[in-house]
Formats: sequence, structure tokens, C-alpha cells
Amino acid sequence: MEKDNRQTKDEKYMRMALAEAHAAQEAGEIPVGAVVVCGDRIIARAHNLTETLHDVTAHAEMQAITAAADSLGGKYLKDCTLYVTVEPCTMCAGALGWSQVSRVVYGAPDDKRGYTQYAPSALHTRTTVTAGVLEDECRRLMQDFFKDKR
Amino acid sequence: MEKDNRQTKDEKYMRMALAEAHAAQEAGEIPVGAVVVCGDRIIARAHNLTETLHDVTAHAEMQAITAAADSLGGKYLKDCTLYVTVEPCTMCAGALGWSQVSRVVYGAPDDKRGYTQYAPSALHTRTTVTAGVLEDECRRLMQDFFKDKR
Repeated sequence: MEKDNRQTKDEKYMRMALAEAHAAQEAGEIPVGAVVVCGDRIIARAHNLTETLHDVTAHAEMQAITAAADSLGGKYLKDCTLYVTVEPCTMCAGALGWSQVSRVVYGAPDDKRGYTQYAPSALHTRTTVTAGVLEDECRRLMQDFFKDKR
Repeated sequence: MEKDNRQTKDEKYMRMALAEAHAAQEAGEIPVGAVVVCGDRIIARAHNLTETLHDVTAHAEMQAITAAADSLGGKYLKDCTLYVTVEPCTMCAGALGWSQVSRVVYGAPDDKRGYTQYAPSALHTRTTVTAGVLEDECRRLMQDFFKDKR
């Protein structure tokens, strides 16, 4: 029962991350979205802005981490969960490691750039990870984006 | 002779990165500084601001990458060298990878957080790396900072 509640909550917040990913797509950005939740409060929402800002560091997770810390008034996200539609890259996983975020939930794996392959110990040792929440929707959004680009 | 010229240039720019690191130290920040050079022009200078901004992503390299891209008007740093006083962490190496920076020059190695140990393939395959420029000075600055903190 507890597991079902958690799954329902995870899907609810992942839908919000997906809404951010759709906003990225509409702006011509690679469709990745993220939200940070603290207790039951959303304290940050962000989407990829690398093209708009001409800035390779402007991934959804990086902006969400900065915005969440700003919202909390401190740099650590110890009681927070970050939801992101796609597996974080090395850079974002490194940032999540510094943030000491409690939990990371992602949708689709990223075989080409995902941290699990290239920086598997990047997260803090106490951070828990759940993968595959609304995986198909998250993956489809990325696949459709790159199909249109070809 | 060419090697000597390069070494002289590397030390010159590393001194500028060290000046940034001293500025960080004076602000109570972990003393890490970075500069980005394109041709013979310095296009970005930055130092660690994680405490001031309450933002774990505000490492010297991250800010230098963003500022350099802003200066160039594009997100890639293909003809640039980033100088940084300490070996980049996983996050910063991931960002440098995305930036496709031509060359990374660092001073002191970071055995605890350095990318060479935790994300050895984070940089772009075409990026060259020079380690150990003004290594002693860069290391001493860090050691003195953490000694004072104890």
C-alpha cells in the first residue's frame, strides 16, 4: 500500500517534469524537464535551456538544483527528491552529488550520456535512485524530437 | 623552444587563475580559480562562489564556461583553453565535456573529488589535458585554507 502511494506520487511529479520537457520541446530545446520536491511542496521546476542561453551547463537538473537551493536558502537538498525525465549526465550527476539530494527519480535511461555508465559513483552515498518512472513517455518524447531533427 | 613558450604561457595564465583563487579565499570560499583563454585573449575569469551563492553548482569552472560562451556568443569552446588551479570534479569535467573545450590545464590534482578517478572519460575525446602547472602553489593554497578551517 505504501509502495502504491509512493508510485502514485512519483508518477504525479514525473508528469510535472514531463510538462517541463514539453515546454523545452516547444522552445526547440532537447526535451528534458525536472522538478524538485521537498515534503509535498514543489520548490523548483526547470527545463533544458542550452540552446536559448547558448550554455552547455543549462541542463534541466542544473537549473532545478540552483532554483531549489535558492528556494530553501541553503545549498544542500538533503530532504528533497529531484524528478527528471531522462537519466542525468555526468555533469548533472556530479552536481546532484554535491547537493546531497535525498533521492533521484528518473524516467528514461540514457545509454549514450547517462551517469550510471560514465560516473557511477557521482551521487552521494546516501542518495537513493528510482529509475523507469513513466519511462515510455519520457523516452518517446526524446525519440520524437531527434526523429524530427533528422 | 616551442615547449618553453607554451610552458611560459601556461604559467602566465595559471597565475591569473591563482589570482582568482586568492579572491575566492578572501571571500571565505574554497580557493579555486579559473580563466578561459581563446587565442591570446582572456575571455573569462571566475572563482568558486558556492558559499556566497548558496549554490553547489557555482564552481569556478562552471562559471568560467558560462562566461566564456557568453563572450563568444556560442556554446562551444572549441578553440579555447581552460586553466584551473585544481583538478576539475565530476560535475565540472562533465560540463567541460559538453563544451568541447580544446584544452584543459590544471594545477594541483584532487585525489578526493577529481574527475580522473571518478569520471575518466568525461572530457571530449579531442580535448587535451596538461596537469601540474604551478602545482605546488595551487596545492598550498588549498592546504592552507583547510588547515585554517580546522
